[in-house]
Amino acid sequence: MPHESSTDRTDMLDKNLLKGDVLEALRASPPAEADLRCMLELAFPADVAEILSELEPEQRLVVLRCLSPENAAEVLALAEEDVQRELLLKLLTKTEISGLLNEMAPDEGADLVAMLPDEKSRQALAGVEPEHAEAIRELASFDPETAGGIMTTEFVTVPPDITIGEALQTLKTSLDQESISNIYVVDAENRLVGVLSVRELLEADPATRVSEEMTRKVVNVHLDEDQENASRMIDHYDFTSLPVVDAEGRLRGVITVDDAMDVLEEEAEEDMALLSGSGVVSVRDPVRRHLRFRLPWLLITLAGGFLAAFLLRFFEPTIERAAALVFFMPVMAGMAGNVGIQSSTVLVRAFATGEMTMRLAFPTLLRQILVGMSAGLLCGALTGLLATALTGEPKIGLAVTVSMTIGITSAASVGTLLPIACVKLRIDPAVASGPFVTTLNDLVGLCIYFTVASILLARIAT
Amino acid sequence: MPHESSTDRTDMLDKNLLKGDVLEALRASPPAEADLRCMLELAFPADVAEILSELEPEQRLVVLRCLSPENAAEVLALAEEDVQRELLLKLLTKTEISGLLNEMAPDEGADLVAMLPDEKSRQALAGVEPEHAEAIRELASFDPETAGGIMTTEFVTVPPDITIGEALQTLKTSLDQESISNIYVVDAENRLVGVLSVRELLEADPATRVSEEMTRKVVNVHLDEDQENASRMIDHYDFTSLPVVDAEGRLRGVITVDDAMDVLEEEAEEDMALLSGSGVVSVRDPVRRHLRFRLPWLLITLAGGFLAAFLLRFFEPTIERAAALVFFMPVMAGMAGNVGIQSSTVLVRAFATGEMTMRLAFPTLLRQILVGMSAGLLCGALTGLLATALTGEPKIGLAVTVSMTIGITSAASVGTLLPIACVKLRIDPAVASGPFVTTLNDLVGLCIYFTVASILLARIAT
Repeated sequence: MPHESSTDRTDMLDKNLLKGDVLEALRASPPAEADLRCMLELAFPADVAEILSELEPEQRLVVLRCLSPENAAEVLALAEEDVQRELLLKLLTKTEISGLLNEMAPDEGADLVAMLPDEKSRQALAGVEPEHAEAIRELASFDPETAGGIMTTEFVTVPPDITIGEALQTLKTSLDQESISNIYVVDAENRLVGVLSVRELLEADPATRVSEEMTRKVVNVHLDEDQENASRMIDHYDFTSLPVVDAEGRLRGVITVDDAMDVLEEEAEEDMALLSGSGVVSVRDPVRRHLRFRLPWLLITLAGGFLAAFLLRFFEPTIERAAALVFFMPVMAGMAGNVGIQSSTVLVRAFATGEMTMRLAFPTLLRQILVGMSAGLLCGALTGLLATALTGEPKIGLAVTVSMTIGITSAASVGTLLPIACVKLRIDPAVASGPFVTTLNDLVGLCIYFTVASILLARIAT
Repeated sequence: MPHESSTDRTDMLDKNLLKGDVLEALRASPPAEADLRCMLELAFPADVAEILSELEPEQRLVVLRCLSPENAAEVLALAEEDVQRELLLKLLTKTEISGLLNEMAPDEGADLVAMLPDEKSRQALAGVEPEHAEAIRELASFDPETAGGIMTTEFVTVPPDITIGEALQTLKTSLDQESISNIYVVDAENRLVGVLSVRELLEADPATRVSEEMTRKVVNVHLDEDQENASRMIDHYDFTSLPVVDAEGRLRGVITVDDAMDVLEEEAEEDMALLSGSGVVSVRDPVRRHLRFRLPWLLITLAGGFLAAFLLRFFEPTIERAAALVFFMPVMAGMAGNVGIQSSTVLVRAFATGEMTMRLAFPTLLRQILVGMSAGLLCGALTGLLATALTGEPKIGLAVTVSMTIGITSAASVGTLLPIACVKLRIDPAVASGPFVTTLNDLVGLCIYFTVASILLARIAT
């Protein structure tokens, strides 16, 4: 978290204004570096990082080199992953990378080091101040999707037997740490034994002992905890920071609320991208990248469509006997796909927020089947009426009503069962729930439709 | 934000354990109120609020009445909207509501008061301490979707001409305020002129003036600013709080990071619910509620399906001449629907995060058309080959290839244009982008398919 919620950046508060000015200075030949230096130092690093995405690779390098080392490090840490990767792998020199890592918080440095090939990361870390390099190395060793992967090692600790006044002094000499909203109390083995918020520290009598004022049972997570669960705890309890401990209960790091917020945003975006089969892409990404993320899902749909073509061949006699059945294929497939994606979206979100657990699997399935049956009966009856009116053949109307009710009920079941099965198999339910559910339900819906129609038409004909 | 990131709630750290114990105590006859009182006081209000959702209405009342007034107020403030509504409208007495409002932060109180009918809210506020009631009334008057609707009025202000030491004293006497991470500096007219973080306050020489140490240009939002934009600013700049001002620049409130986090989660959930047509429903909601939210979207799909049935009647001659065309209807409709929802999801997310602006409308459309054309050519060619192999008729293969390429390209355009049009018309693009896009693209896809096939088959036949 930055040190202030505001700044002295008079004209630089408007992101778009800043962007225009930066572009103008870059386009001058040679680039107006003095102007750039001046406006970039006044701007928010978060805004400069955003502007970087819209620049040409070489322009990004010019901008970074115009910034003071601390600001350049902050901008690089806040930049988009693609931008970071290109700067690190293609544009910046090893010495420059070392210099930037030196200025960066260790958790930010660790994210960057993880992008470098082994050899290059070793060389870059060789140029970093040894203690700082060690902290970066340690953080880079944790799985980036876990609590260990998102925590910071910059926080304030005190022993339990000093006074509140002394603890306040410790805090005052630790104001350069990233996380200062809570002071963690640790014993001689660095085991977490208590916590004091800045609020409590300011409130308490300076002469009392920390151990008397501290809160003893501290909500904490293990290093291996999933990053989404840890972030949801921060959201649920409205914490500003959450301590991370190892198997021995030793305090290893702290997750801050701003990082938790980024994780939750990222996870929601990922779920949405998976459910729609679009991938986490930006509108500004090149066509190639859109295709790379979207084609796999389209090929699943395509395969499902091919299977549908094969299956429909078996129903050719039915289709030839009652061509009007074809008219209602789109409504059947559309409804089944739609109901299925509704159910699976509800399930995927409920699993993500922790509202859904395996204990609820059976009642949830039952409820979704009931929802499917009710919606199926209503929509099936309406479609059956229309089919009768349109074709003049009540048996086609009946076939449509019956098959649509069954098809929609089964679509709701598939949309519910697939995410549950994924969680059982430890697969992210969002991965296998979007285009899979639609495609599967299109197929199942059509099979049910033509099977029911074939049976009914054969029976009623005799 | 609560005062600490942890607590002395020894056995109450496990939510599920707590829930089991609460249920057991409630089921005893008469309910074991002494046990309840004891365990609920030790639990986190956020956990108790979560448990409330799973209880019967009367049990909720028993739980609330077992809590101390402050804890009951916090639990009620954190409960789900449905639970709040039922407690307020059906279960709690007017005196109880007044008592709870008295203990609640004014912004939380305002959210509850907004749920009450005019008469009942007047009566409930009559029992609240006058100054507090006035704060609640004022906050309740703001649109709940704006910065004014989510801000708190509990923050710390100081004049610019006192010393840092005096400002620290002011902070120490204001520790009961909700937002204390930043101290706002206001002039005699209450206009925002600067800000000091607690970090800066502790760092600075106590003898200097606030006006020398404060940051002068403060990022702020207007009362009317959309809540999502305000929350995104907090996320973007990693702020812990964001000041809210009126048209005269007077400081009216502060948005805290925990509330911003809730807004962003809520908005992401809403977008996902709209894109899938499932509504913001919980897996635990009754069937009735699922139907209420899902049926409207299903009826849109149904209407689209009916229209498809009408249109297909016009193509009956083509279908009768080449029944094999029917085999490829599902793949055509499925692909068009899928590509459309991919494009619209990318657009809806980009608008939500502010990455997409109207200035980018044309290049974005162009890029999505290129994505559609590439995907369409590839998938169309594959399907055409399969169609030729399956039917032995190259002209059907050609018809499938051509129509699929055109259909998928048009689906990508529709999926891009619809969200852009919504934003132009000031409609939430997510509302009109989910089932609408799929249904529209199913229809357009089928029309293109049969039109192209009819033309090609007629030409090639002659």
